[in-house]
Amino acid sequence: MLTETIKENPFITDEELAEKFTVSIQTIRLDRLELSIPELRERIKNVAEKRFEDEVRSLPLEEVIGEIIDIELDQSAISILDIKSEHVFRRNKIARGHHLFAQANSLAVAVINDELALTAKANIQFTRSVKEGERVIAKARVEKIDDDNGRTHVEVKSYVNNELVFKGEFEMYRSKNEK
Amino acid sequence: MLTETIKENPFITDEELAEKFTVSIQTIRLDRLELSIPELRERIKNVAEKRFEDEVRSLPLEEVIGEIIDIELDQSAISILDIKSEHVFRRNKIARGHHLFAQANSLAVAVINDELALTAKANIQFTRSVKEGERVIAKARVEKIDDDNGRTHVEVKSYVNNELVFKGEFEMYRSKNEK
Repeated sequence: MLTETIKENPFITDEELAEKFTVSIQTIRLDRLELSIPELRERIKNVAEKRFEDEVRSLPLEEVIGEIIDIELDQSAISILDIKSEHVFRRNKIARGHHLFAQANSLAVAVINDELALTAKANIQFTRSVKEGERVIAKARVEKIDDDNGRTHVEVKSYVNNELVFKGEFEMYRSKNEK
Repeated sequence: MLTETIKENPFITDEELAEKFTVSIQTIRLDRLELSIPELRERIKNVAEKRFEDEVRSLPLEEVIGEIIDIELDQSAISILDIKSEHVFRRNKIARGHHLFAQANSLAVAVINDELALTAKANIQFTRSVKEGERVIAKARVEKIDDDNGRTHVEVKSYVNNELVFKGEFEMYRSKNEK
């Protein structure tokens, strides 16, 4: 059952598995070890490395801020960023705006199906503070590709536990149209 | 003459001094050493550390991206960011947008005369690409402090050699009004 569940949803956490099977997290960990199922972080990395290395065209995968967990070029993309101590203001442990911006902006670059993608403009909103320890899931959606000038409009919405924390409209340059 | 010139403009580079006095950069360096005038980077640091440590209220000075060279709380601020290899896309050596954003955004935070300053919204434009080795000078200007809701509007314009490379309008939260 554990193997099956993880196969269906590779991004499920040990905590969620423990809840699902009403056992302790420790039990889940031991069972995973026995079944040689890597931990969530490793699973995400494996998926990312295998699936996206050849797919992302506009920049090398390691230049994306956060980890891409899904991408369809010129359509949509999703990435995860875990907010750690290096991302927050020392005083209040609130995530600094430029890290949320960097995650969203690099996802907007990555989703472009072109060798060259640069940001022209952005209109952004921080809708609630993100704290150290929280996991930010950014979702990018390509809204419009302008055939004449090659500008691509990408909307990125970032969530913590399904709560909107950041919203951005990015207008991207690209070297040519691939539509 | 050297001492006088540097006193008048502590941010002048050795290259500019060499040009001014039509001597080699090496000569300038040796003369600086003899006169015990520290190099530009050190001079900037000294100015920054001495003048601004107690002045910036909203965050510790080392959390500012770039080096603050001038600040008047709730009025204006200037910072310098030298674009190095860690700031650029590996492929084309163009500075990544989030670093220019981080410089501007942290300057918009620093200029606020309050213990708490957070970014609510931003409207930004990248007007020309910045390359590795270039020096970005960001200038922030507080445009409006809304007495009712405490929102502060800050405009930041960033330049390389007097050419506009980035422009941002930031709407900042603050905990209270100090006006």
